[in-house]
Amino acid sequence: MKRVVIVGMGFGGLEAARALAGKGLDVLVLDRQNYHLFQPLLYQVATATLEAPSIAYPIRSIIRNWPGVRFQMTEVKGVDLDARQVITEEESIPYDYLILAVGSVTNFFGMESVKQSSYDLKRLADATALRNHILTMYERAAQEDDPEKRKALMTFVVVGGGPTGVEFSGALAELARWVLVKDYPELHNERPRIILLEAMDRILAPFSEDLQRYALHRLKKIGVEVRLNTALAGAEPDKVYLKDGTVIPAYTLFWAAGVRAHPLAEALPVPKAKAGRIPVQQDLTIAGYPEVYVIGDLAYFEQDGAPLPMLAPVAMQMGRYAGQAIVKRERGERMRPFRYSDRGTMAVIGRNAAIAEVFGRRFSGFVAWLIWLALHLAMLVGFRNRLLTLINWGYDYLLFERQIRLITRQERERQIEASLEQARSA
Amino acid sequence: MKRVVIVGMGFGGLEAARALAGKGLDVLVLDRQNYHLFQPLLYQVATATLEAPSIAYPIRSIIRNWPGVRFQMTEVKGVDLDARQVITEEESIPYDYLILAVGSVTNFFGMESVKQSSYDLKRLADATALRNHILTMYERAAQEDDPEKRKALMTFVVVGGGPTGVEFSGALAELARWVLVKDYPELHNERPRIILLEAMDRILAPFSEDLQRYALHRLKKIGVEVRLNTALAGAEPDKVYLKDGTVIPAYTLFWAAGVRAHPLAEALPVPKAKAGRIPVQQDLTIAGYPEVYVIGDLAYFEQDGAPLPMLAPVAMQMGRYAGQAIVKRERGERMRPFRYSDRGTMAVIGRNAAIAEVFGRRFSGFVAWLIWLALHLAMLVGFRNRLLTLINWGYDYLLFERQIRLITRQERERQIEASLEQARSA
Repeated sequence: MKRVVIVGMGFGGLEAARALAGKGLDVLVLDRQNYHLFQPLLYQVATATLEAPSIAYPIRSIIRNWPGVRFQMTEVKGVDLDARQVITEEESIPYDYLILAVGSVTNFFGMESVKQSSYDLKRLADATALRNHILTMYERAAQEDDPEKRKALMTFVVVGGGPTGVEFSGALAELARWVLVKDYPELHNERPRIILLEAMDRILAPFSEDLQRYALHRLKKIGVEVRLNTALAGAEPDKVYLKDGTVIPAYTLFWAAGVRAHPLAEALPVPKAKAGRIPVQQDLTIAGYPEVYVIGDLAYFEQDGAPLPMLAPVAMQMGRYAGQAIVKRERGERMRPFRYSDRGTMAVIGRNAAIAEVFGRRFSGFVAWLIWLALHLAMLVGFRNRLLTLINWGYDYLLFERQIRLITRQERERQIEASLEQARSA
Repeated sequence: MKRVVIVGMGFGGLEAARALAGKGLDVLVLDRQNYHLFQPLLYQVATATLEAPSIAYPIRSIIRNWPGVRFQMTEVKGVDLDARQVITEEESIPYDYLILAVGSVTNFFGMESVKQSSYDLKRLADATALRNHILTMYERAAQEDDPEKRKALMTFVVVGGGPTGVEFSGALAELARWVLVKDYPELHNERPRIILLEAMDRILAPFSEDLQRYALHRLKKIGVEVRLNTALAGAEPDKVYLKDGTVIPAYTLFWAAGVRAHPLAEALPVPKAKAGRIPVQQDLTIAGYPEVYVIGDLAYFEQDGAPLPMLAPVAMQMGRYAGQAIVKRERGERMRPFRYSDRGTMAVIGRNAAIAEVFGRRFSGFVAWLIWLALHLAMLVGFRNRLLTLINWGYDYLLFERQIRLITRQERERQIEASLEQARSA
């Protein structure tokens, strides 16, 4: 039986595995986590709206009903393209077909000081870390006597006017305005500042101008200071430096201004495109390696003169294509070239407010928000996750609440791991 | 206005604060966490049944509607009884009345090797760490070729036949039997071993003999090996040593065989009783310090010739008493001596199976299990927690599922904290 190895169980890998299930192939799925993560809702975990388990789903329970699909939790260290082997820390795994779907990581564009002092949102742990940090800053502010320092503790700088930056800023502003204001009576003379920095002259670049204007208006209305044409120069744990010389005293910096291909791409002996992505051919394989498919954020694919964006819908369509292409090739059939069909984009700015370009039409406000809710609920894996998410959203919506505002640092976990490591190496 | 400082927001502290709210006193509540934790259900987080946020509730949202009650998140380092001050890392906080309710920590009875190589369940992070560990052992076993090592990876040793050890063993056996067996087809020839060690000749000592027998029978039925009269001698990360010379190869050791008073007690210049607890007078104050109340696990209080057990109901009644006593003293009234009214004990052994001694009667099996469910649901703080817990329980019950089986190590959190620390100290 021929073996297909899929590296990464994000949106792309998941769809590829689904397309390959039950087709008489040995499909081995590798991921360093044991769950599929619904990344677009990470910001809701970071802003205390959803529990982490609502947006993560165990891979083994997804593939349980997919014949021929196996899972192995492991971190892939490299690929030997000529020997057709995936290299993990423990072993080398031979493949007949390979689907690389390891996605992207945060791009700090070499700004080491920003990397050291900022939070980003790519993994589940990033979201709980950011939530812990935000709430800890409130706790520290409540005990702080120095007004300057208190102000800095309650200043939250978000970099990047894309969907993540905008959605996070909106959710944080509402958390501050409706929930934390009730939790911290000590701070009721203090106004938290949420500052959204964008290097370009507009936010949400892929949307049409009227929707961008609407988003800007909504953000300002819920108290987010948006600064366009403003670039970051560097950061310290309690300061943010702008290119124009301004210094913003702030203990929280959230970086959502760029991603680049997963470091695994670097190690591959193939040419790279912008942001380290791997250029793929019309059938999503690498030139010279027809058995290797590269999909999702990792793949650089131009369509109609522009590269496809690093978005979940692109990854999903690519994953489905790669899976189907392998099945067809095994049957001796041919596959049409890949073509991404854009079904729309959306972003939510806050309660009752979103923008959407779907079905060839533009929506804003409450209707767009309802479309956003329905679509995201439908896309979550598993009935239980949908139900719990609906309850959490409904509860927060009706009561102006946020239930998950726990500070859950894992001290004990660190201690245990350290002592186990010590004992093992002794 | 006179100030009451409450240290610790477990079951005792919470009830004390509730009794003191709106009584014209300045009530300051201190806790190192920002949430109240429902400790008796920690084992359900560790066995992938409940999400962490379902059993934790933000303190600020509890006290929001309690007039005069304030919260400060801080770790108390000591108490200056003569100066009437609580000492934290940042400051000294003067008090007129003090309620010490810091609870207990795990007691390893000086067995350093056990402490280094075992998991315990006192804090929320302990539960997620243990869940991560159990699932990681399964993942490692699925990739392990050496049959001896595979066996050790799938051997789980639980020490302590009290409610925590029994409830955890039962829940783990069911997790293994109904859920993980479907998740890990690679391991379907392997039987996980769950071994419960108890130093005495019976489990669940406080229960009557027939209920103990029932519990033992149920544990065996769901596949738990119970070894009575068996004491631990030591441990390594992959081995458990028994007093009788037996060596059990096992990568998981869960210690639930003892607690002792919180280390804060040691620093106080007052006599100590067994397990480091502080002996209190009939009104729960310390001899010589009538303004200092000690409640919950921390307090050593004899009633009818025996010390009260370290249980949530005892802490709750003590907390209510201490709060009411302070209110009465301020009004110049007298309070009757404290007396614990035992309303019953219960333990759950698994699906449809529990034992309960309540309302002066004994129950076992399905009825006891329903009583357990109803009581624990009712005791959880917050309607949302009850609803989500009910859904999780119902879902798992109907579908023989466990939804939260995520491995969520917080690597990124550790990195961020380390670099922030470094940057701060530089």
